[in-house]
Amino acid sequence: MKKAALRVLAGILLAGLAVSIPAASDEGMWLFNMAPKDLVQKRYGFALQDEWLTHLRLSSVRFGGASASFVSSDGLVLTNHHVGRGAIQNLSSKDRDLMKTGFYARTRPEEIKCPGVELRVLEDIVDVTETVTGAVRPGMSAADAAEAIDKAVAALEKEESERSGLRASVVKLYSGSLFHLYKYKTLSDVRLVFAPENAIAFFGGDADNFTYPRYDLDIALFRVYENDRPLKTPHYLKWSSKGVRDGELVFCSGNPGSTGRLLTLSQLEFLRDTSYPFNIANLKRRQALLHEYAEKGEEEARVAMRSLFGIENGLKATLGYQSGLLDKALMDKKAREEKAVREAVAKDVVLSAEFGKAWDEIAAAQASYASFFKPYTFLERAQGFNTVYFGAARTLVRLAQERAKPNAERLREYRDANLASVERSFLSPAPIYDEFEVVKLADSLAQLNEELGHLQEVRWLLGGRTPDAVARELVAGTKLADIEARKALLAGGWEAVCRSEDAMIKLALLVDPVSRGLRSRYEKEVDAVETRNGTLVARALFRLKGATIPPDATSTLRLSFGVAKGYLEHGRKIPYATTFAGLFALSAKNVNRDPYTLPPSFVAKKSSLDLSVPLNFVSTCDSIGGNSGSPLVNRKAEFVGVLFDGNIQSLPTRFVYDDTIARSVMVDSRGILEALLKVYDAKPLVDEILGRR
Amino acid sequence: MKKAALRVLAGILLAGLAVSIPAASDEGMWLFNMAPKDLVQKRYGFALQDEWLTHLRLSSVRFGGASASFVSSDGLVLTNHHVGRGAIQNLSSKDRDLMKTGFYARTRPEEIKCPGVELRVLEDIVDVTETVTGAVRPGMSAADAAEAIDKAVAALEKEESERSGLRASVVKLYSGSLFHLYKYKTLSDVRLVFAPENAIAFFGGDADNFTYPRYDLDIALFRVYENDRPLKTPHYLKWSSKGVRDGELVFCSGNPGSTGRLLTLSQLEFLRDTSYPFNIANLKRRQALLHEYAEKGEEEARVAMRSLFGIENGLKATLGYQSGLLDKALMDKKAREEKAVREAVAKDVVLSAEFGKAWDEIAAAQASYASFFKPYTFLERAQGFNTVYFGAARTLVRLAQERAKPNAERLREYRDANLASVERSFLSPAPIYDEFEVVKLADSLAQLNEELGHLQEVRWLLGGRTPDAVARELVAGTKLADIEARKALLAGGWEAVCRSEDAMIKLALLVDPVSRGLRSRYEKEVDAVETRNGTLVARALFRLKGATIPPDATSTLRLSFGVAKGYLEHGRKIPYATTFAGLFALSAKNVNRDPYTLPPSFVAKKSSLDLSVPLNFVSTCDSIGGNSGSPLVNRKAEFVGVLFDGNIQSLPTRFVYDDTIARSVMVDSRGILEALLKVYDAKPLVDEILGRR
Repeated sequence: MKKAALRVLAGILLAGLAVSIPAASDEGMWLFNMAPKDLVQKRYGFALQDEWLTHLRLSSVRFGGASASFVSSDGLVLTNHHVGRGAIQNLSSKDRDLMKTGFYARTRPEEIKCPGVELRVLEDIVDVTETVTGAVRPGMSAADAAEAIDKAVAALEKEESERSGLRASVVKLYSGSLFHLYKYKTLSDVRLVFAPENAIAFFGGDADNFTYPRYDLDIALFRVYENDRPLKTPHYLKWSSKGVRDGELVFCSGNPGSTGRLLTLSQLEFLRDTSYPFNIANLKRRQALLHEYAEKGEEEARVAMRSLFGIENGLKATLGYQSGLLDKALMDKKAREEKAVREAVAKDVVLSAEFGKAWDEIAAAQASYASFFKPYTFLERAQGFNTVYFGAARTLVRLAQERAKPNAERLREYRDANLASVERSFLSPAPIYDEFEVVKLADSLAQLNEELGHLQEVRWLLGGRTPDAVARELVAGTKLADIEARKALLAGGWEAVCRSEDAMIKLALLVDPVSRGLRSRYEKEVDAVETRNGTLVARALFRLKGATIPPDATSTLRLSFGVAKGYLEHGRKIPYATTFAGLFALSAKNVNRDPYTLPPSFVAKKSSLDLSVPLNFVSTCDSIGGNSGSPLVNRKAEFVGVLFDGNIQSLPTRFVYDDTIARSVMVDSRGILEALLKVYDAKPLVDEILGRR
Repeated sequence: MKKAALRVLAGILLAGLAVSIPAASDEGMWLFNMAPKDLVQKRYGFALQDEWLTHLRLSSVRFGGASASFVSSDGLVLTNHHVGRGAIQNLSSKDRDLMKTGFYARTRPEEIKCPGVELRVLEDIVDVTETVTGAVRPGMSAADAAEAIDKAVAALEKEESERSGLRASVVKLYSGSLFHLYKYKTLSDVRLVFAPENAIAFFGGDADNFTYPRYDLDIALFRVYENDRPLKTPHYLKWSSKGVRDGELVFCSGNPGSTGRLLTLSQLEFLRDTSYPFNIANLKRRQALLHEYAEKGEEEARVAMRSLFGIENGLKATLGYQSGLLDKALMDKKAREEKAVREAVAKDVVLSAEFGKAWDEIAAAQASYASFFKPYTFLERAQGFNTVYFGAARTLVRLAQERAKPNAERLREYRDANLASVERSFLSPAPIYDEFEVVKLADSLAQLNEELGHLQEVRWLLGGRTPDAVARELVAGTKLADIEARKALLAGGWEAVCRSEDAMIKLALLVDPVSRGLRSRYEKEVDAVETRNGTLVARALFRLKGATIPPDATSTLRLSFGVAKGYLEHGRKIPYATTFAGLFALSAKNVNRDPYTLPPSFVAKKSSLDLSVPLNFVSTCDSIGGNSGSPLVNRKAEFVGVLFDGNIQSLPTRFVYDDTIARSVMVDSRGILEALLKVYDAKPLVDEILGRR
C-alpha cells in the first residue's frame, strides 16, 4: 500500500472514531488503543478514561488461547474451569483425578505447579502500520507483498524482543489495513489454587453447552509466581460482592479468537460449502471414536475426557456458526450489503479502478483453496496424524530446520519471538497414554487413506497395511514420551533429527516436504490474496460508509461493552440471571442423573447456601470463543463475573452481530463467593479476593 | 593445531625439500608449488625451473576428474578417448554412433559443442595453512575441529571466488597438515574436434585394460572456445615429433585421484576387509547386469556400453588394489614400518604424548565406519538408487536446501565456489534411456532391499512390492529428463521442490534425512578423526624420518617424473614401446575378433602406415586413476605422449610405490601423428599441432 493512501485510511478510521456516529447496537470487539470512547459516551453516558483502560488491560491475562484476570495483588488469576482444564488434567492421574474431586490449596505450599502453562499480560501496543506496509513496493504480486510484509513484521518483532525482552507480536487488523505491535510479559510459573469438581463446573455437560439458562460454576483459580514467590501486581480487579444489576452497563476484556464479519460472500460460501462441512464431519467422527474408547473402562473414560470436551465444544460451536451460514436471511443480508458496496464502487471511476477487482480475486482464491483444502488439512494441519506424538515430532523437525534459517525467512511460529514458548511447550511433561494415542492415530490414518490414499506419501506410509498396524508400530517406535529424549533431540538440532531412528520423527520427516508445499500454496495463493484484497474491501467500506467499523477478532485483547439483560425465546422470557435454587431444581428434575449429577460437596452443603444468590447471568457484550475466562467489570472496573459461554443464538454472530437474543454467559461474582465460602469452606481465598488480608 | 607446532611442521617439510635427501626411486606425485627440484637434480641432473613449471601447469587441463593438456595456441585440448567418452556418447544417438564411427571435424564450424563438459586450468596456488589451522582452538573435539576447519575453508573459497571470479578450492594435504588454496579458471564451451573409433581407442577391451604391451589410440581432441571463438592461449605444449627415447627422463602432469600410501594399517585393513570386498561384489553385479542388458539388441548394447567401461575399469582397478592388500609381503612391510614408527614414538616421552594415541584413534574410527558402511554407501552414496534420475533429484533437493543456508554451513559440494558447476552439470542435456534406467534402478533397489530391508525408509519405498514395479513407477513418474522442467524446479527453489509431484524428487526427499544423518556420522566419527590423527601420524613421520615424503594424491594437479623404460615379467623382457606392427599382429593372432577387431579405417590404411612407428610406451612415472589424459613431456617441456593406463602391476602402488615392474602406459606422440596423417587424413589437425599454420 502506498503511504499516502495509508494515511488516508488511518485518517478515516480515526475520524470515524472521533465523529462517533452512534452505533445501533453493542456490537464490537474493540481495540484497547482505539477504544470506542465516544460511542460509549453517547450510548451509555459513560466516559472511558485512559487510566481506566490501562488498568483493565494490565489486569487482563491471556491464558493459552483464552482469557483470565488478576483478582488479587498476590498474583491470583481467575479463569474458567474449562480454560484451565488441560492444566488440571495434566496434574491428574489414575489415582488422583482432580477433574472428579476438585482441588483447593488451603495454603500456599499446597499450590501445584502446572508445567507448560504460560500466561501473558499485554504491556503495550504500538501502531507500526507505516513501517509494515511501507515494505510493500508498487507493482509487487500479492505473494511478494505478503512476503515483504512478513519480513517487516519479523524484523519488528525480533527488534522489540531483543530490546525489551518482552514477547512481541504484530497483529494484522482489518485484513491488513492496520498493523499493531503487541508487547507481552510472559509468566510461566503458574500454580493451581482452586478448581471445583467438573460436575459443577460443567453442569449440564455437552447437552447444555452453548445454552441458557445455565448453572455452572465454571471457574478455576491459579497463582502466578516469580522467583518462587507470588507475583506482586498493582493491577488486579477489585471484586464486586454486589455483582451486577439487571440492565447495568458492563465491559468485557478478553481475547476473542476470530470472527468473520468483514468476510466477503465468497469467503462465507467457502466456509459453508467446504470448510465447515469437513470440520463438522471430522469432529463427529472423533467424538464417536472417543465415546467408544471411553466405554472401555473408567480409566479409559478419564483419558478420553481429556480430549472430548474440546471436540464437543468445537463441534457445537461449528454447528452454530454453520447454522448462521445456512440461514437464508443472514446470507441474503450479507449478499445485499456486498452487492450495494460493489455497485457503489462500480459507479465511481476512481473507486472502481482502486477496489473493483477485490471481490473477484478473493473469490478466485477460495476456488484455489478448495482444490487443495483436503491435503492441506490432513497433511499441513496434521488432521491425518491425530496423536500428540506427531505434534511433538513435527515441532522437533521444524524447529531444527527453521532455527538454521535467518529469522525473517522462518515459518512464523518458529521466529525468535516465539521460540521460547515453542520450546517450553515441546518440553512440557503432560502425561501421554499410548493406547489412546494408537486409537486416535489409527482412525486418522484410516481417514487419511480414505481421502488421500492416492498420494505417494500416504501410499508409502500405509503400503497396503492396516492403519491400526501402522499406528501401533509408530507409537511403539517412538521415545518422545520421554522428556529427556526430547531435550537431547532439541539440543542436537537437525543432525540429531536426521540421525534419529524414532518412528514418529521419521513420519514427520516423510510428510514434511509435501506439507510445506501445501503451506506455501496456502500462504501465496490464498492468504496473501485474501490479505491484499481484504484490505481493499475494508478501505472501500470505510470510503463509502465513512463510519467506524469494529475490526474482526484476531485472538488478541479486546474490549466489548453491553448490558446485563435477559431476552425472549419462543415467547418465553429468559431472565438476566439464574440462581443456586435453579441449579438444585434442574438437578432434581433430572433425578441427579448425568450430566445433571451434583457433586457430593453441593449435595452436602445445599442447606448452608443462600439459594437466591445469582449463579450465572447474561449480557449483550460481544464475544466469541477465546473470550472464555474474560472478566466482566462494572463502571468502577470491579469484577462482576467471568464469561464462560454464549447462548446458541450467539454463534451466528460470528458473521453478523445481533443483540435481540444473542447473549454472552457469565458466572456471577456473587455466586462465586457464595460457593467458595459455603460449599468449599475457602474463607482464606475469599479474604484474599475481597482484599481482607 | 597450535600455530607454533604448525610452523615446526612446515619447517620440517620445507627443510626436507631443501636438504633433498635423494629418494631411492621415482616415487611421488609432487605439488607444483613444492616441486622436487633437488631430487630431480640429484637423480637426473636436471634443474626444474620455475618458469618451466609454470608453463607446464598452465598447459595442463583438468577434464572432469581426469587430465588433459593444451596442444595448440588455438585452445586445442588433447586427452584420452576414454576420458572424453561421456561427452562423445552424449553426442551420439541410435542413428549417429560416434563411438563406433569416430569423428573428425575437418573445419571449425563442424566442431560439436559438448553440453555439460567443463575444463579447468590451475591458475595459482597459495599456502593457506596458517589461516585454516588457526581456526582450531585448543581442546576442541575432532568433530568440532573439523567443523572449524571446514568453515575457515569455506570462507577462504568464497572470498577468493568473489575477489577473482576464479573457482577456488582448498586442498587438504598430508591428511590435513597443509592446506593450499587452488584457483581455477573454468572453461565451459568445449567442442569435439577428433575422436577415433572406440575399437582402436580401446583395442583389447576390458581383457587388455591395465595390461602391457598395449596398442591403443586412446586419444580425443577437443577445442575450448571463449565468446564463440577458439581460446587463444600462450600456454600449450609444443609437440615432439621425435617422441621419447628408451631411458629418457619424462615428466607427467595431471590429476591423480587418490592414493593411500600414508594410510595406517587399520585403514588399509578397512579397505581390504570392508570397502573393497563390497565394491568388487557390487561392480561385478553391475557388470553382469549391463552385459545382460546389452545382449537384448544393438541399441541396448550401445546404451549399456556407456556405463560398462566405467564399471569394468573400476572393477579391474579395485581388484588390482585389493591384490596389493591381499599380498602378505606388502602388508607385512606396512605393518613393520608402522610398528617401527609407533615404537619410536612410544620410546620418547614428548613424541608419545603428542602422537601416541593417533593410530588407535584412527583404528577406532574404522570400527565405527564399518558399523554403518552399508547404509552410508547405499543411501548417502546412493548405491541403492542406481539411476541418473536419482542423482538429478538429489542435486535438486539439496541445492534448494543448501542454498538457503549461509555458505560455510552448507554441504561442501554446494558452497558458492562450486554452485556454478553443480548447476551446469544439473542442466546438462545428456540423453537418458528410460528402459535402461528402470533396469539399473530395479536391480539396485533389489540390492538395497537385500542389504537394508529393515530400514523404515526402505520398507516404505518397497512395501512388499517388487523392485522392478517400484523402479518402473519411479521412472514413469519423473519429468527430470526434460531440461526445461529442471530449469523451472531449480529456479523455484525449496518451495518448488516441496510442491513437486515428481516421483523421483519424492524419493530423494524420502531418503534425504536418513542420508544426511549418515553423512554427518561419517564426517564427524570417521573423517574428522582420520584428519586430526592423520595429521599427527604425518607429523610423527616427519619428526622421526626428517625426510621428504610425497603427499598422497588428492585429485589435484601433480607432477611426477621417471624414465621411459621396459621391464621384466616372468623372465620375459617387455620393451619400453610397442609399434603399429604389433597392433596388426595382435589383431591377426585373434583373427580380428572382438575385442581385437580393427576398425575399417585401420584395415584400409594399413599399407600407408609406417608399421615401425611407436604406438604406446611405458615409464616409471608415478600415476594412478585420474592421471588418464596427463601429458608426458621431455626436458624441453615438449609433448611426448599421453598417459592412458597403468599396467596391472602398477595397481598396488596405490599403497606402496615400486618401479621394478609397475609402469604407467602412454600413447606415443609419434604414433598419434602417424595415425592422424595416414589413417584419418587429418593433415590440418597435424599442421595445427605441429604449429605449421
